[in-house]
Formats: sequence, structure tokens, C-alpha cells
Amino acid sequence: MNIPTFTDVELAHEIVQKYAHRTPVLSSVSINQIVGAELFFKCENLQKVGAFKFRGACNAVFSLSEEDARKGVATHSSGNHAAALALAARMRGIAAHIVMPENSPEIKKKAVAGYGAKITFCKPTLQARESTLAQVIEETGATEIHPYNNFHVIAGQGTAAKELIEDQGDFDLIMAPVGGGGLLSGTAISTKHLMPACKVIAAEPAGADDAYRSFHSKGWVPSENPKTIADGLLTSLGERNFAIILDKVDDIVTVSENSIVEAMRMIWERMKIIIEPSSAVPLAAILEQKVAVQGKKVGIILSGGNLDLGKLPF
Amino acid sequence: MNIPTFTDVELAHEIVQKYAHRTPVLSSVSINQIVGAELFFKCENLQKVGAFKFRGACNAVFSLSEEDARKGVATHSSGNHAAALALAARMRGIAAHIVMPENSPEIKKKAVAGYGAKITFCKPTLQARESTLAQVIEETGATEIHPYNNFHVIAGQGTAAKELIEDQGDFDLIMAPVGGGGLLSGTAISTKHLMPACKVIAAEPAGADDAYRSFHSKGWVPSENPKTIADGLLTSLGERNFAIILDKVDDIVTVSENSIVEAMRMIWERMKIIIEPSSAVPLAAILEQKVAVQGKKVGIILSGGNLDLGKLPF
Repeated sequence: MNIPTFTDVELAHEIVQKYAHRTPVLSSVSINQIVGAELFFKCENLQKVGAFKFRGACNAVFSLSEEDARKGVATHSSGNHAAALALAARMRGIAAHIVMPENSPEIKKKAVAGYGAKITFCKPTLQARESTLAQVIEETGATEIHPYNNFHVIAGQGTAAKELIEDQGDFDLIMAPVGGGGLLSGTAISTKHLMPACKVIAAEPAGADDAYRSFHSKGWVPSENPKTIADGLLTSLGERNFAIILDKVDDIVTVSENSIVEAMRMIWERMKIIIEPSSAVPLAAILEQKVAVQGKKVGIILSGGNLDLGKLPF
Repeated sequence: MNIPTFTDVELAHEIVQKYAHRTPVLSSVSINQIVGAELFFKCENLQKVGAFKFRGACNAVFSLSEEDARKGVATHSSGNHAAALALAARMRGIAAHIVMPENSPEIKKKAVAGYGAKITFCKPTLQARESTLAQVIEETGATEIHPYNNFHVIAGQGTAAKELIEDQGDFDLIMAPVGGGGLLSGTAISTKHLMPACKVIAAEPAGADDAYRSFHSKGWVPSENPKTIADGLLTSLGERNFAIILDKVDDIVTVSENSIVEAMRMIWERMKIIIEPSSAVPLAAILEQKVAVQGKKVGIILSGGNLDLGKLPF
């Protein structure tokens, strides 16, 4: 199994910084007072396509050989990865084939189409998504870019933590949410290389706690019937991601739905930025005191800002 | 009448940069595509207290002599200026006396009290506000800091445009909303000094168009029964502000309420930042094609991000 190292994150950064925003790092005096720590938020909600996913997709697309690139890239996704891959492919001038469940929200279909992707709709089951993707790849010769269980995607996601540390110096603790594990594994690679003494702790909704259970039992547990407002964190851990997480992450904790909404609203109100529920999960863990941060300097990766403004939970 | 020059803005900046955030400048590929121009948004919604007002208040408070400072500062305001003055005073370790109408929203009373201000409540009329303030000043010897018709406040507000130009280079056009004229007059001083060929255009809600009428008739017109969702723009122009605006601003245009809401939602959805309705007024003017921006490089000051998340217009 091919696992990226920090050298691969550095190579990824040479690519990613040409195409992605170097997102700002923001902090809030009032949130710091509430939690008794210094929190620094890396704003990937302000990244292109509104999510860190653009980093990994960008690195994957621009790492392809000329020959492979000519045949395009493909994935099945209804979320941020689809939009990220579509935009990265458009930037390289190649085709992006996206398999989407036919019941995906209109707004997501439009976003992906807006970036110029070729969409193939399928029935809304994992089996239909996988078989339709296989067919698309057979017809086009496109390279599959998995949303998180992919060498170049993981290396690309690691560039967010690298920038955070470059901009703000040493941390006691870095936190990220965990779904498929792409962001968390990339974050852990960068953090443990640059600051071996810094802890890396992930937070996950209690209603989708497969990573929590996998990590603490040291055996992969699938995500079954997950239920959470944090819709970016529904997926099971990827194989590569889990290997990196077991090796480099210090802890995974879970949080309630109420805490996620409370943390999300706190960031909206006090920091004046829009984050999706998934981004609020690490702060929720701090508010629930699942993670001890008193007096510490803590970096938090805000994963994205895509949600339906007409359906807010407050 | 004492009118600040760019030298005063530079002096203000030496003070302001010690206490305020140097806010990021953000742009959106998709909004640029929609309007056919390059827009750069100076994010004063991410400023301390969530508004540009902190710059002016900060400069006013830290420009006081030791002797005057000891007696504190005072103002009547129920909005962002009250919070800004309270925080700046706390930073200098002096008292801030704020006169607020007794019917001010709880959330604003709490915010101002949270910054440690001494609040005096009064009847919700301009007369009661002014007479109560006069009484507070007589009792305390505090210096009145007017929210916009104040030399140091204007110079302080000019630092936002100064930073925008320092960070992004030359512009064809700089835009700001106009209420009392503090932000607009400061913006015009900085812009016309640093880039004499750059246009400065302000936008105002049609329902509160006193600046528009004053500017085009070249005679001061008060704001009477203004009605707009952009609650930061209800006030009449200050005397100093109007003099600077007549001298340095190229045009003032008006926009509809619908456009303000549309522009506000566009910035929320595409830039993932929270702005209050007043901040959306310049983009609304561009969307209404009241200002020609095709192919131009345009700077826009986003004035603030304070609003009740429970009462959104969409």
C-alpha cells in the first residue's frame, strides 16, 4: 500500500499553491475567552469550491502524466470532491467524468455541471455508483480519483496543515474533523513531521462514529446507517487513511448533534464566516470538554462552507 | 472645519495597526464571472467587533491626551460604533460611556456591556439621546467621540482603503456604502491620494437616499424617515463627511432593497462570509448596473458582519 510522506506533501504543495488559495488563518478573542485557549482556524471554507477538497483534487489531476491526463479523470461523488475534481480538471483542460446519484440535490448537480464536468446519473446505491463508474472508466480510459483513499489526494490535503504551521508557528494541538480520513491523514503527516511533539486529535459526530470505533479497537469498522447534520462525515475510513491515522493520530473523540449546531453558530456569529456543520465538529469537541485545551495553542482546520442557506439549523 | 488629509490617515494607521486586524482581501471567481470584472473585497466584517468602526474608534481613543483620556470617552449609539468605542476604551484602560435607547435590541445591549462600557439608557428619540449624552459628559468630563463627524474617526476609517491598495495595487474604482459618511470620506481621502485617477463611487439604499440627494444637489439634505434593511445606513451625512465627499467622491448611486438582499446572499453563498445588509450595497449597485465595471479592477469595502442570524431575509 502506497502511503505518502511529508516529502509528498511538499511536492503536492508546489502544485497546489499554483492553483488554490492560500486561505487565511483567523482567530476570535471572544471564542478564545470562552474556551480558555488560543484557537487558530485555517479557513478552508474560503478555499476554491468552498472546501479543502480542492487541494487533493488539484494535486491528483496535475500529478497525472500527459498521456493519462488526456483521457480525463473520473469519480463518484455528490459532494465537495465532485466539484473540486471538476474544477481541477477544467484548470488542466481535461475531462472530468462524475457519477452522481440521480436524487442528488439540484444545487449540487448545478454546481458540478457549472464547473464543466460530464455527469452520469445512476441509482442512489453504492453498488450502482460503483458499477456506473466502472463502466464510465471502461468507455473513456479516465483515471479514477477516489475522494480520500488516494495517494495524491492525501498528500494534497496535507498542504492545509503545512500552511497553517508555516503561518502561525508551533502548536500544542492540531484538530480536524474525520469522515473518510483524507483531511485527517494529510493533516497528521504534516503535523507530526513539522512538530513531532504536537498532538493530532480528530473529532467525529457520535451519530457517525466509525472512525472513533475503528481507531479505539484498532480494527476497521464500516460506517453503517450514519445519521448526523455533518453531511461531509458520513463515509467510512479509507484503507490508506486508516493506516496513517493508526500510526500518527493521538486520539479521536465524538460529539453530539447539539454541540455541532452550537459550535457552528458560535463560529458564524463571532467570526462572521460561513462553515458547514462538518467544520464545526472540532470546536464542538472543545465545547464538550472532550479535548483538554486550557492554556494551549490549538490549530483547527475548518473543512468547508457549503450548505443550503435556506435550511439552517438555527 | 478641521478636515483630515492622507497624512492624518498615515498617522492613524500607526495607531490602528497596533490594535486592529489587518483584514484579508478576498475575491470570488464566480462573482467575477457574473459581473465581468475583477472585484476585491476588503473584509471589515472580519475586523474586531465585526465592523470597520473599530478603526475610527481606536484612532480617536488612542489620539487623546493622557489628561483627556483619564476622563473617558462618550457617545450615543445603539450600533457598531458603540461596541467599537467600548472595546477601544477598554484597550486603553479608560471608561466608555455609551448612551443607548432603552428599546435597543438585547443582543446589542449585551455586546456593548460585554466590552465593559458604562451604559446609560434613554428614551428612543434623537433629542433624548443628545440631552442624555450632554448630561453624561457634564458629569464625567468625558470626550465625545461622534460615530462619523469626527476628525480622528474619519482618518481611522481611511486606513481600510489604504490597506486594500497596499495589498492589491492599483484599482480603477473603489466602492463603499454610505450612511453617515465616515467610511466613505476616509476611503476617498486614501484613494485619491494614492491613486488620483481611480474613481470613488458610493452606493446607498433608495429608501435612505439622503447622501445621493445631498451629493447631486450639492446641498445637505437630512435623512428623513429612512426605510431599508441596511440598518447601518439610516443616518444623515455629517458636516465634515459631506465636505470631503463633495470634494473627492465621483458619484453616489442608489439601489433597491431586493438587490441588497440578492447581493448579500451572493456574497454569503459564493464567498462563505457573513456580511450585514449594509455591506452588500456596493455589489447591489454593480448587479443593478448602476455602476459600469466591465473589465475593471474594483475594490469594495465590506463594512461589517453584525446581524441577527435568527432573522435572515432569505
